[in-house]
Amino acid sequence: MTLVMDRPEIAPQPATEDEKTTGGLVIFAWSGELDKIWPTLILANTAAALGKPVTVFFTFWGLFPLVKNDRGITGDGWMQKMLSFMNRGGLKNMKLSKMNFMGMGPSMMKTLAKRYSVSSPQDLLDTAKEMGVKLIPCQMTMDLMGLTKDDLIDGLEEPAGAATALAVAEGATTLFI
Amino acid sequence: MTLVMDRPEIAPQPATEDEKTTGGLVIFAWSGELDKIWPTLILANTAAALGKPVTVFFTFWGLFPLVKNDRGITGDGWMQKMLSFMNRGGLKNMKLSKMNFMGMGPSMMKTLAKRYSVSSPQDLLDTAKEMGVKLIPCQMTMDLMGLTKDDLIDGLEEPAGAATALAVAEGATTLFI
Amino acid sequence: MTLVMDRPEIAPQPATEDEKTTGGLVIFAWSGELDKIWPTLILANTAAALGKPVTVFFTFWGLFPLVKNDRGITGDGWMQKMLSFMNRGGLKNMKLSKMNFMGMGPSMMKTLAKRYSVSSPQDLLDTAKEMGVKLIPCQMTMDLMGLTKDDLIDGLEEPAGAATALAVAEGATTLFI
Repeated sequence: MTLVMDRPEIAPQPATEDEKTTGGLVIFAWSGELDKIWPTLILANTAAALGKPVTVFFTFWGLFPLVKNDRGITGDGWMQKMLSFMNRGGLKNMKLSKMNFMGMGPSMMKTLAKRYSVSSPQDLLDTAKEMGVKLIPCQMTMDLMGLTKDDLIDGLEEPAGAATALAVAEGATTLFI
Repeated sequence: MTLVMDRPEIAPQPATEDEKTTGGLVIFAWSGELDKIWPTLILANTAAALGKPVTVFFTFWGLFPLVKNDRGITGDGWMQKMLSFMNRGGLKNMKLSKMNFMGMGPSMMKTLAKRYSVSSPQDLLDTAKEMGVKLIPCQMTMDLMGLTKDDLIDGLEEPAGAATALAVAEGATTLFI
Repeated sequence: MTLVMDRPEIAPQPATEDEKTTGGLVIFAWSGELDKIWPTLILANTAAALGKPVTVFFTFWGLFPLVKNDRGITGDGWMQKMLSFMNRGGLKNMKLSKMNFMGMGPSMMKTLAKRYSVSSPQDLLDTAKEMGVKLIPCQMTMDLMGLTKDDLIDGLEEPAGAATALAVAEGATTLFI
C-alpha cells in the first residue's frame, strides 16, 4: 500500500490536548484565489479577535499565496516549473476565481476594498501573524509542487500533513475554503 | 491597523447563549452559482425539517442570489455597476459553476429537477423562510458590491459581519459552500 | 409544497446514536474534480488511520468519480445523456478544476504525485474501502443525473439523502469539498 500516511514525517498521531483547537476555528485553505483568501483571512482574524485559537492549514492551490511575492519560477523539473509559471505564487499575484477580466477584476476588487475600508490581503496576513493565528503549510503539497521553506513567506508554522490538520481540527469550527 | 473588524457595526463580540446554534447547522454561502445554491438550501431546509436551528450567512458572490430578480444594475460608481452587470443578481439569473452552455445548462438542470421532484431554488428559498431558517446577508459584501437592503429580497435578517457568523457557528455543524 | 424532503425514501429522521459520527469526520463531496477528490480521500483515509469514524457523502458533481470507469453514456432522455457525455464519469476520467491544459494537467499532476509517493485516487479509494470509510452516494443526485446503482463502483453504502448526511454529521468535523 503506497499511502501518503506511510511517510514518517506525516504519520497519523492522535491529537494531544495541547494540539486541539477546541472552541476555535480551523480553516483548510485549499483555494489560491484572491476571493477565497479574503474570507479565509477575514474569518481567521475575526475569530482571533474574539479570543479564539485559530489555525489555517494551507494545502494544494492554497499554498501559492504564501509564496514570496518576488519568487519567480519554483520547483525542480519542467512539470513543477510549468505549474509555478502558470500559477504564479505570491499574495499580490492572486486572481479572482471568476470575472478576472485579464487582471482588471482583482485590481477593481482591491480598489473597492480600499474605498470601503476592507483590509488588503497583505494587511490581513500581517494581522493574522500579529494575532497569533497559526499558519501551517502542507508538507505534501510542498513536495508535490516543488516548494521549499525558503520559497515561502516568514512567520509560518513548521510544514505538516493532513493528520496534524485533522488533529488540530478536533472540537473546532471547521471550514474548507 | 486598517482592519475590517475596526468598523463598529461589525466589531467582534463573544456569542451569547441565545446566538449560538448548538446542535444546528450554519452554512457560509460564498458561491452564487445555481449548483451551489441548491445544496445550500436543500441542506438548510432538511436540517430545519429535522428540528435543528439553521443559519445561512450569505457572503461575497453568495449575496447575488438574494438580489431581487427585477433589479437591474446596482451600486455606485462604474466598478460596482460593472460588477453587477457582469454578475447579474437574482435567483432566477443564477448560472452553473460549469457546463453553463450559454444558459442551456441551468435550464436543463431545472427541467431535470422538476421531472424528479426536486424543488426549485425559489421554492426552497420560500420554504427556508417558512421554516425559520435565518438568512443573514454580509454587511461588508453589501458595502463592497454597493448593495442596499432595498436591493435584496424580503424576509432576511439584519445584515451582519463575520463576527456574528462565527458566533452563531459555535457548536454547530459548519459548511463553507 | 413540492419539497425534496417530501419523498419518503429521504424523509428527515433524527439521528440514532449509532448513526452519529461523534468525534469523526464527515465530508460532503460535492466537486467531481481530480484536485478535490484528492484532499477528500487523503483527509478521509488519514482520519480513518487515526481511528476516527469517517463518512463521505457524494453529491452533485461529486458523484461522477464513483461511476465505473468503463461506463459510457448514462441516464435516460437526451438531457441526462448529454450531461454524462459532457461530464464523463469514472475516477480515471477526472479533470483538474483549473489548469486542465486539454488533459495534460491531470496527467502531469499524477506523474508528480507518483514521483513524490502520493497515492493515486484509485489507490486512495481502495484504501478508503479497506479502512471502513463509509462512502454514501446521494440518492437525489442519482435520480437527477439518471445514475443507477449498477452505474456506480462496488463497495458503496446504500444511496441516501441530505437528512442522512446531516444526521451522520452530528458531532463530527465537517467539510464541504
